[in-house]
Amino acid sequence: MEMNSQTQEKSYTNSIPSKLYSNASEFIKKIKKIGEDDPRRITHCTKVGLALTLSSFLYYIRPLYDGFGEAGMWAILTVIFVFEFTVGGTLSKSINRGFATLLAAALGLGAHHFASVCGVKGKPIVVGLMVFSLAAVSTFIRFYPNVKRKYDYGVLIFIVTFTMVAVSGYRVGQILELAHQRLSTVLIGGATCMIISIFICPVWAGRDLQFLVAKNIEKLADFLQGFGGELLTCAGDESSNDSGAKNVEKSFLNGYKSVLDSKATVDLLANLAWWEPPHGKFKFNHPWKQYLKIGGLSRECASLIKSLNTYTISKSLTTAASSEFQTIIRQPCIEASTESAKSLIEIASAIKKMRPPGSAETHVQKAKSAADQLKTTLQNYSLPSKPDLQEMLPLLVATSVLIDIIDSVEEIALSVCELSRKAGFRNPKSAGELMPLPPTQVFHRGIVSPIEDGGDHVGVDIQADSTHSPEKRSSSTT
Amino acid sequence: MEMNSQTQEKSYTNSIPSKLYSNASEFIKKIKKIGEDDPRRITHCTKVGLALTLSSFLYYIRPLYDGFGEAGMWAILTVIFVFEFTVGGTLSKSINRGFATLLAAALGLGAHHFASVCGVKGKPIVVGLMVFSLAAVSTFIRFYPNVKRKYDYGVLIFIVTFTMVAVSGYRVGQILELAHQRLSTVLIGGATCMIISIFICPVWAGRDLQFLVAKNIEKLADFLQGFGGELLTCAGDESSNDSGAKNVEKSFLNGYKSVLDSKATVDLLANLAWWEPPHGKFKFNHPWKQYLKIGGLSRECASLIKSLNTYTISKSLTTAASSEFQTIIRQPCIEASTESAKSLIEIASAIKKMRPPGSAETHVQKAKSAADQLKTTLQNYSLPSKPDLQEMLPLLVATSVLIDIIDSVEEIALSVCELSRKAGFRNPKSAGELMPLPPTQVFHRGIVSPIEDGGDHVGVDIQADSTHSPEKRSSSTT
Repeated sequence: MEMNSQTQEKSYTNSIPSKLYSNASEFIKKIKKIGEDDPRRITHCTKVGLALTLSSFLYYIRPLYDGFGEAGMWAILTVIFVFEFTVGGTLSKSINRGFATLLAAALGLGAHHFASVCGVKGKPIVVGLMVFSLAAVSTFIRFYPNVKRKYDYGVLIFIVTFTMVAVSGYRVGQILELAHQRLSTVLIGGATCMIISIFICPVWAGRDLQFLVAKNIEKLADFLQGFGGELLTCAGDESSNDSGAKNVEKSFLNGYKSVLDSKATVDLLANLAWWEPPHGKFKFNHPWKQYLKIGGLSRECASLIKSLNTYTISKSLTTAASSEFQTIIRQPCIEASTESAKSLIEIASAIKKMRPPGSAETHVQKAKSAADQLKTTLQNYSLPSKPDLQEMLPLLVATSVLIDIIDSVEEIALSVCELSRKAGFRNPKSAGELMPLPPTQVFHRGIVSPIEDGGDHVGVDIQADSTHSPEKRSSSTT
Repeated sequence: MEMNSQTQEKSYTNSIPSKLYSNASEFIKKIKKIGEDDPRRITHCTKVGLALTLSSFLYYIRPLYDGFGEAGMWAILTVIFVFEFTVGGTLSKSINRGFATLLAAALGLGAHHFASVCGVKGKPIVVGLMVFSLAAVSTFIRFYPNVKRKYDYGVLIFIVTFTMVAVSGYRVGQILELAHQRLSTVLIGGATCMIISIFICPVWAGRDLQFLVAKNIEKLADFLQGFGGELLTCAGDESSNDSGAKNVEKSFLNGYKSVLDSKATVDLLANLAWWEPPHGKFKFNHPWKQYLKIGGLSRECASLIKSLNTYTISKSLTTAASSEFQTIIRQPCIEASTESAKSLIEIASAIKKMRPPGSAETHVQKAKSAADQLKTTLQNYSLPSKPDLQEMLPLLVATSVLIDIIDSVEEIALSVCELSRKAGFRNPKSAGELMPLPPTQVFHRGIVSPIEDGGDHVGVDIQADSTHSPEKRSSSTT
């Protein structure tokens, strides 16, 4: 019994340091992973430290301190609250803070003067009333969705500055100087942040948005490719089905799920990208909203893929014994999924490299003709007189969902073409060769071969595609 | 020509005021709608105004001003940055700000003393280095997901306060007083916000979370009820199908879509609710995470409903001419969807009223037996020798998806039972009658009848349910 309690005690005292140790090592591992996941985070931290050190010079250096006095503190505050990970975030907050301070300082001065007219007794009451009503109205305006999205921080700073100028005027006296000092230190802090953010290893929200949207499309492509591959394995070798299916499952089955939850990030990045100045290939008025549209269509496609996944793989479409029907539909299914995967890969690469989505259209057309074949099979196939519905059902559902996925992929392709037109994407060398056709015409009439690995030139095939009626063309671009 | 240009000019000058007017009236309409959507927003604005006016007394009133001086400004800053719509938001920010200020002030004082040892020349260098490294490390820690979620604001305030205490010490001299003043004004501002937020018309994030989760489940119920109703209409009266289907479509087809996008809001509210003190029926350690689980299951169910919607209604399952198969499956489909809708309504009401989900289990059981019937039909039904696949397919898919929806509804029911157990939900009058059984046992053994409209007492039926094997029970609660 004594032994037992001793052992217990020992294991107890042992467990505390070991627990602490394991917790600490867990924490360090996570921290390491954060840095490895995105090394720009480490640069960002250095940049924040730099901006803060620079702005605290306003305190250190005697001539600057004599100029700004205590207000130098505002530069420090500005840097800490305004410096964000992306350029767009920093600009959005800096500009919001700058304009809000300017406007609120002016209004605060006005309020101060107006209150002074009301005499010594009336002044605090008038100022109090003004602060109350302005704060209440501004707080209400923050609920307005468009304000909330873009100017929320500005409204907060507006209330802060107005209150401080109006209220402190009651005591400080030299109110004009206060407003001037506050404004100039905020501007200095904001400018420091903007310059460091833009010129030292900038992290562009627009570029991140572009990569996220492209990455999401790649994940869809991964699934479709994996799905096609799995069908192919089943068709080729019946005996190795089980293990084959499971291996593939692990690699591609989970990618598309993160696409479903990507709305918030895509929205946020598009919002921040709106604030960014032209940079790299991104010109003024880049169509950021189009990325939201593509993101939405990708999520639609991901949700279809989820259905496909639920109703086929979990119900072992691919591992079921081959029936006659299965044999008939397998080839077009493989064709449809691999071709749409190819087209999505092409599209993702086009978004990343900011060039027209080249051969995507060819692949979409191939996938569509495979889908048409599936549709015809579904219409004309005569089932055996006593079909096993339990076995047929997943097959039928898979086919039906796959047809819808192809439609969804085509929509994504069209909306990327629209992006390409709106943003003026061009192929690097053939820019002179391409006529400035409207994009859908480029899309439907001319097919630009993708750049081959190691190839130095781009081939342009012009194919007259008479199968597309004008109605179809106009409806698909609306 | 002249006439023409005059008319143009007139219409141009006319169009500007009319445009301005229409824009302004549009804006006012939207603002009005924001207030009408949630009248608590108006109360919130008044509360912010009140807190701000109270905290600016630190400036107005002579004895207080003599005590705090310029530092009174920090109370104003604190109020504006800390006051949030929900109690949880306000508490989270106040507590973060309070603790961060305390910790940073102490560390800043330490840094100041340490730097003083290094002599007049070394001091700015040492302070600069400390500020740089602390800011860089803290900024990096902000990327840690758990810190980002709960303590992001605290880390920001920590950097601000540390920098200001460490840097301003270089000039101001009376650094201890500065730190003390800053801390007490922040505490005064924070306390003002917390008191007003909790005691004047509080908006509890926990309550909002509960209502949102319940509302989402109601939306799923609406769809299933509408779907069942539509099937019923089709079964009853073939001629009025089209108009009937379209009317119903409008009312219930769009509700579930908002459920799909509810993740961010549910996550945020659960996060804020964590900060809230016990209030009303919410006790200490309320299982907020369980709401996240229920929210996730609701989204799963909504995505199944989306499939059902895509593959049935858009392909006019309900308006297709009746085949023999359709007639056979219609009744169980109606039964399954209406019973699961009833169970979801019961569940939503249980969440709102914080009582055990009463008769939900009965309805789930009925829906499940209808689903079993559908499964049997699918297994045993012999198709005609030449079935029209194009017509059969949507029916088959609808049936298959509906079976999965019933499973999903059962999962929701089970996880609400888990919530009920963890949070100790009780029926208002029968609390004494119910034995403190483990919840799954309560769920499977006893079925509590729902409170009838106008009824004053609750009937409790104890039914031995031997059909549930222990394996099933344990697997469904994990």
